[in-house]
Amino acid sequence: MSQEVEFFFDFGSPYTYLAVTQLGRLTEKTGAEIKWKPFLLGAVFKGSGNQSPAAVRPKIMHLMVDLQRWVKLYGVSFKMPSAFPINTITALRMALAAAEKDSVARFSGRVFRAYWEENTDISKDEILVGLAADEGLDGEALLARTKDQEIKDQLKANTDDAIKRGAFGAPTFFVGKEMFWGNDRLTMLERHLLGK
Amino acid sequence: MSQEVEFFFDFGSPYTYLAVTQLGRLTEKTGAEIKWKPFLLGAVFKGSGNQSPAAVRPKIMHLMVDLQRWVKLYGVSFKMPSAFPINTITALRMALAAAEKDSVARFSGRVFRAYWEENTDISKDEILVGLAADEGLDGEALLARTKDQEIKDQLKANTDDAIKRGAFGAPTFFVGKEMFWGNDRLTMLERHLLGK
Repeated sequence: MSQEVEFFFDFGSPYTYLAVTQLGRLTEKTGAEIKWKPFLLGAVFKGSGNQSPAAVRPKIMHLMVDLQRWVKLYGVSFKMPSAFPINTITALRMALAAAEKDSVARFSGRVFRAYWEENTDISKDEILVGLAADEGLDGEALLARTKDQEIKDQLKANTDDAIKRGAFGAPTFFVGKEMFWGNDRLTMLERHLLGK
Repeated sequence: MSQEVEFFFDFGSPYTYLAVTQLGRLTEKTGAEIKWKPFLLGAVFKGSGNQSPAAVRPKIMHLMVDLQRWVKLYGVSFKMPSAFPINTITALRMALAAAEKDSVARFSGRVFRAYWEENTDISKDEILVGLAADEGLDGEALLARTKDQEIKDQLKANTDDAIKRGAFGAPTFFVGKEMFWGNDRLTMLERHLLGK
């Protein structure tokens, strides 16, 4: 039986985008299954008492340099979005709606690329509908579902669950009770999955 | 000509200890020279507007787990000291005095091991004198030198210099203007030194 990796994400996190570009390699190497779990990173910072790295000026300056090093190492495309930070709540709710159609990875992967590679404003309903359509999904239906209390509650529940289990940033991965935080801990996660 | 890596350190940082265990491998692989530069991490947090990870409860909880993963990966010895955090100012000043005798790496390496492997109270003068003696150094002379304004000023100057150049935590490495932060960026530093 393949191991399950819970992957808590918010589209607004650049290191989460970087991690997303490596998930295919991770699952190939380990046979693990990724369970995509949208959460609200802002609420995670607040709930855990942590602060966004963007709150500390020298940290954000260095983060920009560090991101480019990872982009080079991974050989991926990356463009700092003009709208940053951005409101991701509708996109995250649509990801939950997509999960009901077994399409959360496809939809979310598309949104990550749109924001972090194509400088797309992912706070806008019509943009999100179009991104869903790119993946052959009914974007209008997903958007409609974001108005339902059930989906709103799910996003809050994911966020609260992550905080309760020790999360304080993103990306956050869980394998059972074992937590891994950060794109830079993907190799640790991989080692764990391989029983090293 | 070999490249110089400025290595800003404070004995009180566990991730800096971890990095220290890998410096031999780094210099072997890259031919770089490490210039050990003691600084006061507490002042760096304050001066940069950053906060110690120890200030955020879920972060410190996770840090303990993460440290053990690195200990396993590196195959090094590690024991969380009973006195933590600890006052490192005399030890750092002695490291500066040791630098005048071209012995900063030897003295500092011994202090890192004493604190992070042997649960030694490195805030105490007599302990520090003994650790210097372990390395064949005149500990009393190094300790006497810590009372001199010149050494006190040097520690402050190193700290201010690091903050001015963008440091906000430890360990911090510089190769010219390129900054690398964290034990977990040693591979990035290595790639940079190898021109990758």
